[in-house]
Amino acid sequence: SSLPKTNRAAVYTKVGEVATEVRELSVPEPGPGQVLVKITHSGVCHSDLHVMLGDWSFVRGDDGGVGGHEGVGNVIAAGAGVDPSLLGKRVGIKWLATICMSCKQCWHDRDCMCAGAKISGAGGAVGTPGTFQEYTLSDAKYVTPIPDGLDSELAAPLLCGGVTVYKALKILKLEAGSWVAIPGAGGGLGHLGIQYAKAMGYRVIAIDGGDDKKKLCESLGADVFVDFMKEGDNIVKAVRDAADGEGADAVVVVNSSARSYAQAPDFLAIGGTLVAVGIPGGSGPVTVEPAELVIRDIRIMGSAVGTRQDSVEALALAARGLVKPIVKVEDLSELTNIFKKMHKGDLVARMVVKVSQD
Amino acid sequence: SSLPKTNRAAVYTKVGEVATEVRELSVPEPGPGQVLVKITHSGVCHSDLHVMLGDWSFVRGDDGGVGGHEGVGNVIAAGAGVDPSLLGKRVGIKWLATICMSCKQCWHDRDCMCAGAKISGAGGAVGTPGTFQEYTLSDAKYVTPIPDGLDSELAAPLLCGGVTVYKALKILKLEAGSWVAIPGAGGGLGHLGIQYAKAMGYRVIAIDGGDDKKKLCESLGADVFVDFMKEGDNIVKAVRDAADGEGADAVVVVNSSARSYAQAPDFLAIGGTLVAVGIPGGSGPVTVEPAELVIRDIRIMGSAVGTRQDSVEALALAARGLVKPIVKVEDLSELTNIFKKMHKGDLVARMVVKVSQD
Amino acid sequence: SSLPKTNRAAVYTKVGEVATEVRELSVPEPGPGQVLVKITHSGVCHSDLHVMLGDWSFVRGDDGGVGGHEGVGNVIAAGAGVDPSLLGKRVGIKWLATICMSCKQCWHDRDCMCAGAKISGAGGAVGTPGTFQEYTLSDAKYVTPIPDGLDSELAAPLLCGGVTVYKALKILKLEAGSWVAIPGAGGGLGHLGIQYAKAMGYRVIAIDGGDDKKKLCESLGADVFVDFMKEGDNIVKAVRDAADGEGADAVVVVNSSARSYAQAPDFLAIGGTLVAVGIPGGSGPVTVEPAELVIRDIRIMGSAVGTRQDSVEALALAARGLVKPIVKVEDLSELTNIFKKMHKGDLVARMVVKVSQD
Amino acid sequence: SSLPKTNRAAVYTKVGEVATEVRELSVPEPGPGQVLVKITHSGVCHSDLHVMLGDWSFVRGDDGGVGGHEGVGNVIAAGAGVDPSLLGKRVGIKWLATICMSCKQCWHDRDCMCAGAKISGAGGAVGTPGTFQEYTLSDAKYVTPIPDGLDSELAAPLLCGGVTVYKALKILKLEAGSWVAIPGAGGGLGHLGIQYAKAMGYRVIAIDGGDDKKKLCESLGADVFVDFMKEGDNIVKAVRDAADGEGADAVVVVNSSARSYAQAPDFLAIGGTLVAVGIPGGSGPVTVEPAELVIRDIRIMGSAVGTRQDSVEALALAARGLVKPIVKVEDLSELTNIFKKMHKGDLVARMVVKVSQD
Ligand SMILES: [Zn+2]
Ligand SMILES: [Zn+2]
Ligand SMILES: [Zn+2]
Ligand SMILES: [Zn+2]
Ligand SMILES: [Zn+2]
Ligand SMILES: [Zn+2]
Ligand SMILES: [Zn+2]
Ligand SMILES: [Zn+2]
Repeated sequence: SSLPKTNRAAVYTKVGEVATEVRELSVPEPGPGQVLVKITHSGVCHSDLHVMLGDWSFVRGDDGGVGGHEGVGNVIAAGAGVDPSLLGKRVGIKWLATICMSCKQCWHDRDCMCAGAKISGAGGAVGTPGTFQEYTLSDAKYVTPIPDGLDSELAAPLLCGGVTVYKALKILKLEAGSWVAIPGAGGGLGHLGIQYAKAMGYRVIAIDGGDDKKKLCESLGADVFVDFMKEGDNIVKAVRDAADGEGADAVVVVNSSARSYAQAPDFLAIGGTLVAVGIPGGSGPVTVEPAELVIRDIRIMGSAVGTRQDSVEALALAARGLVKPIVKVEDLSELTNIFKKMHKGDLVARMVVKVSQD
Repeated sequence: SSLPKTNRAAVYTKVGEVATEVRELSVPEPGPGQVLVKITHSGVCHSDLHVMLGDWSFVRGDDGGVGGHEGVGNVIAAGAGVDPSLLGKRVGIKWLATICMSCKQCWHDRDCMCAGAKISGAGGAVGTPGTFQEYTLSDAKYVTPIPDGLDSELAAPLLCGGVTVYKALKILKLEAGSWVAIPGAGGGLGHLGIQYAKAMGYRVIAIDGGDDKKKLCESLGADVFVDFMKEGDNIVKAVRDAADGEGADAVVVVNSSARSYAQAPDFLAIGGTLVAVGIPGGSGPVTVEPAELVIRDIRIMGSAVGTRQDSVEALALAARGLVKPIVKVEDLSELTNIFKKMHKGDLVARMVVKVSQD
Repeated sequence: SSLPKTNRAAVYTKVGEVATEVRELSVPEPGPGQVLVKITHSGVCHSDLHVMLGDWSFVRGDDGGVGGHEGVGNVIAAGAGVDPSLLGKRVGIKWLATICMSCKQCWHDRDCMCAGAKISGAGGAVGTPGTFQEYTLSDAKYVTPIPDGLDSELAAPLLCGGVTVYKALKILKLEAGSWVAIPGAGGGLGHLGIQYAKAMGYRVIAIDGGDDKKKLCESLGADVFVDFMKEGDNIVKAVRDAADGEGADAVVVVNSSARSYAQAPDFLAIGGTLVAVGIPGGSGPVTVEPAELVIRDIRIMGSAVGTRQDSVEALALAARGLVKPIVKVEDLSELTNIFKKMHKGDLVARMVVKVSQD
Repeated sequence: SSLPKTNRAAVYTKVGEVATEVRELSVPEPGPGQVLVKITHSGVCHSDLHVMLGDWSFVRGDDGGVGGHEGVGNVIAAGAGVDPSLLGKRVGIKWLATICMSCKQCWHDRDCMCAGAKISGAGGAVGTPGTFQEYTLSDAKYVTPIPDGLDSELAAPLLCGGVTVYKALKILKLEAGSWVAIPGAGGGLGHLGIQYAKAMGYRVIAIDGGDDKKKLCESLGADVFVDFMKEGDNIVKAVRDAADGEGADAVVVVNSSARSYAQAPDFLAIGGTLVAVGIPGGSGPVTVEPAELVIRDIRIMGSAVGTRQDSVEALALAARGLVKPIVKVEDLSELTNIFKKMHKGDLVARMVVKVSQD
C-alpha cells in the first residue's frame, strides 16, 4: 500500500529518567485481528510518567520503548479477519490496548483484571507500543469509536481519566439529586468527575484546596465547594453539613491522598458508598470498624478503568457537550518538557500532544 | 376480661451483676396499636447478657427491668385500632420491639437505624419491657407471625440470630453454587448461617476451631471445614484453596473476632464481598488498601438484624425444615444459671426459657 | 383549643353528576396517630372526576362526601401518640391517605396494593374525607413534608401526578443519556415526566400531537418531539430514528391511550423497557409475541403512585427548581366549573383550588 | 501432524426432508483463533430438526451441510494465536459457535442478538459446520470448558437446553423459597428447569399433563405438580393455590404453547415475573392489560440461550450432581432414525449421538 516505511515516535530514553527523544521507527504491519491507527493526538498521563520512571512494580517501560495510552486517530489499515467497515474510522486507544475476551474477569466486565490484557505504552510482557508515535497497532475489537462532534484533543484524555471516573460514578446507581463528594475534585480526574456526576443528575460536593480550585469546580457545576485547607479538622462536619447535615450518599476518591482515604468513610451518610479510584503511592488504607459498617450501613468498593461499553457512554456524554476536559495541546517534540513539568507538579490542564496531521 | 392481675417475670436484680429474680408484676393493658402476648418461650441471647451487665454504651438494662427479646407466644388482647384477626395468633417479639415506620431509615429497610425504634428487654428511653415475663406488650404492626409447623422453641432464637444471619446472606444475591465463607460457623449465628446459605444454593466454607465444631458444621451441610487452630498462618491459603483456589465469593463474619476481620478481606476472590455482622468488643477494624479495592474489586459492607419481611422469609425456610437451630429449653426460673454459664462461655446450644404454658 | 367549630368544604352533590357545593361542616378532631391539617391548596385531578362520576368499579364517591387528594397545608393539631414536632409543619396529603404499614405489599413498597390503604377524597369503606375542605384529618405517619422553597400551589399536583411519573422513571435505573420516550408527553403527567427524566440525566423523546404541544415539550427540555398526528403510520420509525436509529431504552406510557399501548413495544430498542402508568378506560392491552421478548430482550412492567420516600425525592427535585408543574389557581368555590371544564376536556394546566388562607 | 485426512460426518441429504447420511469429509485445518475439536458426543436438538426441515425463516440448513450444536470433545489442534493450554482440553460447542465480542449486544451479554454470531450446524452466511462430525472447527474463545466429573453425554444437552433454562432462572434473583411455576416442566428444557430451580433454592410448581410427567417431575424435585389435563379451566386457581394462594413469584414458560403464554400472567402473584423462553410456532402472544401491570406489579421479559459465563455456571452445578439430564445415547449412524422419531414426537429423553471414540 501507500504507507510510509518509517514514522515519527517519541521513545523513553532510559527508564528511570525523565527523558524522551523523537526517533524514526519502522511502521508496523497489522496482523490478524489488528488495525493500524494513524494517531493525531495523544494525551499525556501521570501513568505514563510512572511507566517512564519505572517506579511501579507491576508495569514499567522499556528503554527505547514507545509510551502513550490516550491516543486518537484514524484506522488506515487492517489485518486478516477485521471488519472492513473500520477502515477510515476515527478510534481511540486506551490504557488497556486489548484484553483476552475469554476469561472470567472479562466476562464480568473487569477488563483491568484480565491476565491476558496488554497495556498500551508499557514495556515487557504486559506492554505493547503506545500512542506517542504516528502509526500504532491495536486490537480491532478493543479500539473505541470516537463519536462525531467530539474533538480528538478532547477525546484523548477522556479515554483514560474520563472513562475511569465515569465508571466509578456509573456503578453507584443513586437517585437523582443524591450527594456525591469528590475529594480531589479540582484535579485531572476530579474536574471530569464533577461534570459526569452532574450529567447523571447528582449533586456534587467538590473537595479541594484554594480559591483557584474553588472557582474551577464551581464553573464546572459543583453545587458546593469544601476547601480542605480552610476547614482543617472541621472538614468532616463541613462535608456532612453540605449534604443536608446527613453526609454524602457517595464519596468517590479520585486523588491518591492517604488523608482522603482516612477521612472518606466519615463523609458518608447512613447507607452511603465509598468508591476508591486513586491509589496512594505508599500505604493509605481505608480503615473502618465493623460497627460502622453494621450500624451506619456503609459500603466500600473500588473501580478500575472501564469497559468498551463504558467508554462509548462516557464519550457520548462529552459529544453532547455535557463534559469537557481542560486540555492544552503541544507538539510531540515537547513531550520531555511536559513530563518534566508533570514531575514537578507544575501542570494544571491535561496535556495532549499532536502526533501527526489528520 | 379474664386476664389475671399479675404475672410471673424474671427481672434484672441490679444492672452490672449476673443476677435475675422471678417476681410477680402486674399485667399491662394494651394501648392503641398494641397487643398483649402471652409468652410461652423466650430465647436467651448474648445481647441480653450485655444489657444486664450494662457494658454497652448505647443500650443497657434497668435495675428491676424485664429483659428478653426472642419471645414467642399468643396474642390474647389487643388495644384500639388493632386488626382483630391478630387475636389468638402465634407471634414473635424481636430485638426491635417497634420502629417508627415513618422515617428515611424505616423507608430504606434499615429498621435498626430508626431513631424511634424501641429495644425489647432494654431499659431507659430506648427500651421496653421484654419477653422474660408471661404477658408482654408489643406493637401489633411489628410482631412477626410464626408459621405453622415451626415449634415455638425453635422459632425463638430464629427471631434474632436467625433473621440476622439470613439477612446478611440475602443481600449477597450471588449465583447458585457460589462460595460463602463463614468465620465463626460453629457458633450461635454461624450454625444457622450454614443452613441458610445452603438453602440459598450456596456452597459453604465453615471456619471454626476443633473437631467438635468440624463435626457440627459438616452435619449442618458445610461443604468444607477449615480449622483455624490447625491452619494457623496458613488459613488464608486454606480458605482460598477450598474455593477453587480463587477465594470465596463472600465472607460473612458472624463472630466478633478482631482476627476474623483482619483476615476476611484476604479470603475473598476477585469481585468478592465481605459482610460484617459481628461487632468486636474493642477495636477490630477492617483495613484494606485502595489498591485491593480497585485491583481486586472487593466490596465491604455490613448488615444489621432484618426487617419484618426478612423475618417472615427466615421463619418460612425453617418451617420447611431447611433450617433448625440447636436449642436447649429450661424453665424461666433457671435464667440466672443460664446467664452464669453464658458469662463463662460454657454454653453450646442456644438457650430457650419456658415462660408460661401454652 | 382555638379551633373553629365548623369549616368550609366542597362536597359532591350527588355521585354521578358533575356538581359540587360548598357547605359548612364540623371540624373533626384528630384521633390517635392522626393530624389535623389546615389545607391551603388542593390540586383537582382527573381521578377526582372519576370518583365524583362514580364510573370506576373499585372506588367511588359518596353523596355529600368531600373529595380531593392533592392537598397542602399546615399541621394545626395532633392526636395521641403523634410526634409533636409535626405541629406547624407544612405537609401534603396524597391519593393514598394512609396504608397499613404492616403487610407484604407495604413491605415491598407497593403502597397502592395494600388492602388496608385508604383513598383520600373517596367514599365507602376504602375512602376517607378529602382535601376540598379547610380542615382535613390525616395519618401523621403518611403525610409528606413539603420542602422549603416549594410553593404550595406547585406542591399540590406534584403529590399525585408528579410522584407517579417520578417513580415510573426512577425504577428504570438507566445510564445517563439513555433515551426515554413518553407518549402523552404534553399532558398532565407527561409535562412533569419530561422534567423528571431530564433531572435524571436521560434524553427525552416527547410524543404528542400538535404545534402547541411541541412548543410546550421543547420548552420543558424534550430533546426530540414526535408529532403522532403528523407521523401517522410512520410513528414507530420516527421514534426509533430519534433514538439513534435503534429505538428507545424505555417507553413510559403516561396517557391512557389504547393506541399508545399497542405501539409502545415497537418503540423500544433491543433491551428496552416499557413502563405502564396510564390505564385505558376500556380494553387497551399490551400485546407482545414471546419471540419479541426473547429475541429483542424487551421488558414490560407497570408502576403505581409512589412511596413516601419517592414523594420526598420528587418534591426535593422540584424545590431545587428542576421540575415545575404548570398550574392555575382558583378559589374553592370554582370547583364545579373546574370539573365541568375537565369533563369537556377543556383544561390545559393542572388546576389548584385555594381552600383557605395560610 | 498425525491428523487423518478425512473424517466421518452426518450431513443433511436435502433440506426440507427428514434425512441424513454419513459421509467421509476432509478434516478442516484451524485458522487463526480456531481450535479443532474431536467430537465424541453430540446432542440432537429440536432446533436441529428445524434447521434440517428449513421451516424457520431466520436460519436453515444447507443440502449436504453438517448439523449439530451440542458437541463435546477434545481439542486436538489449534490455529495461530490460540492459547496453547487449550490443547487436550475437553470442551463444548454450543448453538452459537461464536460471537463478534465487539458490539453493543455482546457487551450487554446478549450473545444471541450479536449480528456477527455464527450458528453451529446451520447453513448460509449465519451458519458454520456443526458437531455431527468427528472433527469440528470452533472459536477458541467461545468453546466451553467441560468440568471434571461431568460425563460428556450429559454435558452435551446441557450446553443447549441446560444453559438456556439456567439463564432464564438466573435472571430472576428471587429470595430462597420463592415459587417458580414451569409450564412444560416434564419436557426437555422443563426437566432441567426443575433441577436448576431447586439448586437455586426455589420451590417449583411443575405444570404438565399425565401421570408419567407427574412421576418424573416429582422425582426431579418439584414441590407441586399441576396436571393441566386434569385441571382444565381450573388451572389458574390450581397454580395460585399451590403457591400459598397468592400465585407464583415467577413463571418460566419453557414450552412453545400459545396456551401456556395466554395463561401465564394469571399464574403470577402480585410482583411476579413472567420469563418467556419457548417460542410458539405461529402466533401465541402474551397479552396483558396495563391495569394488570400497574395494579398487580407484574413484569414480563424473555431470555435467550446464555453467555459463556452462564454456561460455566450451569455445567458446574451439573458436575456437582445437582442437575442431571435424562439422555439416551446411540451411534451417529442412527441420526436419521432419531430425527424421524423426534418429528413424530416419539422421543422422551434427550438424544445424544456418539460421534467418535475418545
Ligand atoms: Zn491515562
Ligand atoms: Zn480476559
Ligand atoms: Zn438476640
Ligand atoms: Zn423510623
Ligand atoms: Zn391526583
Ligand atoms: Zn399494607
Ligand atoms: Zn439445542
Ligand atoms: Zn457481537
